[in-house]
Amino acid sequence: MSQSTDDTLMNGAESLVKTLLESGLDTCFTNPGTSEMHFVAALDHVPGMRSILVLQEGVATGAADGYFRMARKPACTLLHLGPGLANGLSNLHNAKKAGSGIVNIVGEHAVSHIELDAPLTSDIEGIARPVSHWVHTSMSASDVGADAAKAVQAANLAPGQVATLMLPSDTAWNTGGKVAEPLAPQPRPPFDATALDDAVAALSGPDSLLLLGGAALTEDMLEIAGRISAKTGCKLLCEWANARLERGAGRVVINRVPYPIDQALEVLKPFKRIVLIGARAPIGFFAYPDKPAILTAEGTQIIDLCRTSQDIAGALNAVCDNVGAAETPPAGIAPNAVPDKPTGPLEPGGIADVLARSIPRDAIVVDEAITTGRSFFPATAGAPRHTWLNNCGGSIGYGMPVAIGAAVACPERKVLALVGDGSAMYTIQSLWTMARENLDVTIVIFANRVYKILRGELTNVGVSNAGPKAIDMLSLDQPTLRFVEMAKSMGVDATQVTDCAALELALETGLATKGPYLIEAVM
Amino acid sequence: MSQSTDDTLMNGAESLVKTLLESGLDTCFTNPGTSEMHFVAALDHVPGMRSILVLQEGVATGAADGYFRMARKPACTLLHLGPGLANGLSNLHNAKKAGSGIVNIVGEHAVSHIELDAPLTSDIEGIARPVSHWVHTSMSASDVGADAAKAVQAANLAPGQVATLMLPSDTAWNTGGKVAEPLAPQPRPPFDATALDDAVAALSGPDSLLLLGGAALTEDMLEIAGRISAKTGCKLLCEWANARLERGAGRVVINRVPYPIDQALEVLKPFKRIVLIGARAPIGFFAYPDKPAILTAEGTQIIDLCRTSQDIAGALNAVCDNVGAAETPPAGIAPNAVPDKPTGPLEPGGIADVLARSIPRDAIVVDEAITTGRSFFPATAGAPRHTWLNNCGGSIGYGMPVAIGAAVACPERKVLALVGDGSAMYTIQSLWTMARENLDVTIVIFANRVYKILRGELTNVGVSNAGPKAIDMLSLDQPTLRFVEMAKSMGVDATQVTDCAALELALETGLATKGPYLIEAVM
Repeated sequence: MSQSTDDTLMNGAESLVKTLLESGLDTCFTNPGTSEMHFVAALDHVPGMRSILVLQEGVATGAADGYFRMARKPACTLLHLGPGLANGLSNLHNAKKAGSGIVNIVGEHAVSHIELDAPLTSDIEGIARPVSHWVHTSMSASDVGADAAKAVQAANLAPGQVATLMLPSDTAWNTGGKVAEPLAPQPRPPFDATALDDAVAALSGPDSLLLLGGAALTEDMLEIAGRISAKTGCKLLCEWANARLERGAGRVVINRVPYPIDQALEVLKPFKRIVLIGARAPIGFFAYPDKPAILTAEGTQIIDLCRTSQDIAGALNAVCDNVGAAETPPAGIAPNAVPDKPTGPLEPGGIADVLARSIPRDAIVVDEAITTGRSFFPATAGAPRHTWLNNCGGSIGYGMPVAIGAAVACPERKVLALVGDGSAMYTIQSLWTMARENLDVTIVIFANRVYKILRGELTNVGVSNAGPKAIDMLSLDQPTLRFVEMAKSMGVDATQVTDCAALELALETGLATKGPYLIEAVM
Repeated sequence: MSQSTDDTLMNGAESLVKTLLESGLDTCFTNPGTSEMHFVAALDHVPGMRSILVLQEGVATGAADGYFRMARKPACTLLHLGPGLANGLSNLHNAKKAGSGIVNIVGEHAVSHIELDAPLTSDIEGIARPVSHWVHTSMSASDVGADAAKAVQAANLAPGQVATLMLPSDTAWNTGGKVAEPLAPQPRPPFDATALDDAVAALSGPDSLLLLGGAALTEDMLEIAGRISAKTGCKLLCEWANARLERGAGRVVINRVPYPIDQALEVLKPFKRIVLIGARAPIGFFAYPDKPAILTAEGTQIIDLCRTSQDIAGALNAVCDNVGAAETPPAGIAPNAVPDKPTGPLEPGGIADVLARSIPRDAIVVDEAITTGRSFFPATAGAPRHTWLNNCGGSIGYGMPVAIGAAVACPERKVLALVGDGSAMYTIQSLWTMARENLDVTIVIFANRVYKILRGELTNVGVSNAGPKAIDMLSLDQPTLRFVEMAKSMGVDATQVTDCAALELALETGLATKGPYLIEAVM
């Protein structure tokens, strides 16, 4: 244990902050309350922790998700009791599905106070459990350091886990805190070596598919996949939603299994053999009457070689070696491709071309453009190399918070957040934190003024006769949301565009701006 | 069972909507998703359910809370899977603590889809349980009607409960739905008659206190309390946070046990005997080092005559009869009191006087003004008769959603929402729904640009040396939130005031406006 000489005077909160720092965590997204005041006070006594204030906890947890994806290490959140955690819950759901490591520190009443059932008392562990892999309440100032080290270790377990540590206020304010040393990160377990021969045999010709996910989507891993594809003739695809995917000119192109179920069935139909590395066998986002939930054709052979938590690099290298592709040049390298300047009103194809022309090198693209955005991904494969982040949990309101975390993790890179208007309103408070921290985020809001995806879903679930009340529940046009004024009211400069040429100019302005900039793209 | 002849063709969603209507529920606050599309479609086929769209589910659950407080019957919410419920969780926490009856309908994947662990799959029952009194998943179209009737009965159990019913999408879309008849509401259990003699003996002189809560705070019940006070000389107080309290000129005045712990200890110190009717023995909101959590003096006799779920009217009448006060004129009737017109900059005393001069007869005041608002309650006792609503669960962001629900429940009454800037930002999306439904709500945002309550709490918890990083985590001034622009961006007209005279004029404008109006009161 690394202990200072005045340890007996250190309170629990200080030992917690020091332990988090020693374990490599130096960023905290927070909206604190009374029960967290000692942690907040400790931020002054203990240098090194960057604290970022948010106006609603959904922003904090989403930011921690984005931070992990780009920094490859967890941030912590500091949340006020059960309700503060509850506000952050849906973005923790998304983070859990993305495999993002997060350490939540949640204030709790002093142990003696809990039994009194005060207004803010709730079953915090009960609230935490559905979105956490690891849950613990620290019962004394002398325990909290060691508990924090365990929380960080749990958060770092591959691919990344949500760890939630409850901090009763007396645990925070009592003296006797002990700083704990970092616990060694646990290695990824091996892939399923017994399936290797089958995988190698299966990857042969265009009716075989190598389906990738998770850590298989880095530049290096995709290059190996490209070699395998070149040697065996197999196709490459990745999941619809990916926590982080490296792409752009000079990198191996990989397409995503489509979201619309009929398209997904069509794309997957040709494959007789599918090898999974870091991906799961494709299933539908939702169930639909009279449509299959499992998207692969009947009789398709599926070989689950490596789960997303396992040794993905080992699996890809083993396949590469065993098919004899180690020296094969990778297939499917994206050429540098700049489409012609699109003109006319904003529609998905034109917007996609504008993006392909505008994405700067090393940009981080946060994709929550839902219906408008479906064409963006394929169209931008030839843009300068960049990183693409998807929503893996399907709960909307993930985009702007994740953009905050990505910008904090990578201050030298531009973040481009592509967000639908319905999604944007879920966590619109994000704008204030972007302004406060002067984060380099350009946000494009696609204002089609409707939950457009649901218009399609009405038909998909078999509702053919939707009436005016149903349609009204999917409409955002009354009153019109004025995103330019909204952004400015929270300190973010903004502009509105209605055609492709203006969008391209606005993107140029936004990406040249140091700090946040919002573009309302009216569809 | 009341069944139409084409019952075999009715799907589960239609039977659910029809059952809710037959059980007396006719208002639904919603943000639906794919899994809820059949419920949405049923809104067209089945007339009678008013559906109100919100941009984030915290608005829906808070609105349902406010609706119950004023309508005295539950509304339902329609929420999208676990994440939609999660977004509404903190205002369900507040509703649970307020004793508000709510029926949450939460979409769930089709039963066959859950095991596939799709992106939006989560432990919905686990998320629901900490904030619900009643949780159930409907397993077939033929069950959901009967399940809904049980949910409504559970929500109506005194004082009001949170009932959460999961609706798998195949339960919604399959035919075979059966409309269930309403279940009779369960009566309040009797008060503790064995404590009656002690209660009657205890209420004698100014060192005895009758502490009231819940249904004891109606006009009629307070009049009975006033008779008891006149006859016995006992004092009257109510809890700090009350779901609904009737007050104003001509009604019996009742003050609240203060929130600041030192003030609460001072106020409660004189009492040797306390009788509880609908209230709980006073405890601190938070634990503080070296301060008691139980706020009554040591040795105080506490008689728990009637819990908030029990027969409060019976208890008050029994005490009244037994002390012989049935014919005694009530003590403590508030005289009509109009303070002089305040001038000068905005400070709590002046604002309180403006409110006392401005609150219109039968207004519903939603109080989330936190620190600025502490003086408002005593100062407005002599305003025209009105209703006062507090936050009973302490999770901020309750005010504007509750105002929505109150305005929907009582379209003929003016709603005045008094909200701190920090609280307002939690559920700022409320403004759009207010504009969309043209609700008669005047919102005053007290913009002191700081989480001011926490500045005090830092000291209370023993942090005497807060440094710049701690102070920064409690500050809202960088950048300045511009509430007038923000309101207008969501369709709500607004103005900014900086002195008492301008506030009074703005309130006059707002209260004369048909529809929402926002006043940013810069402190």
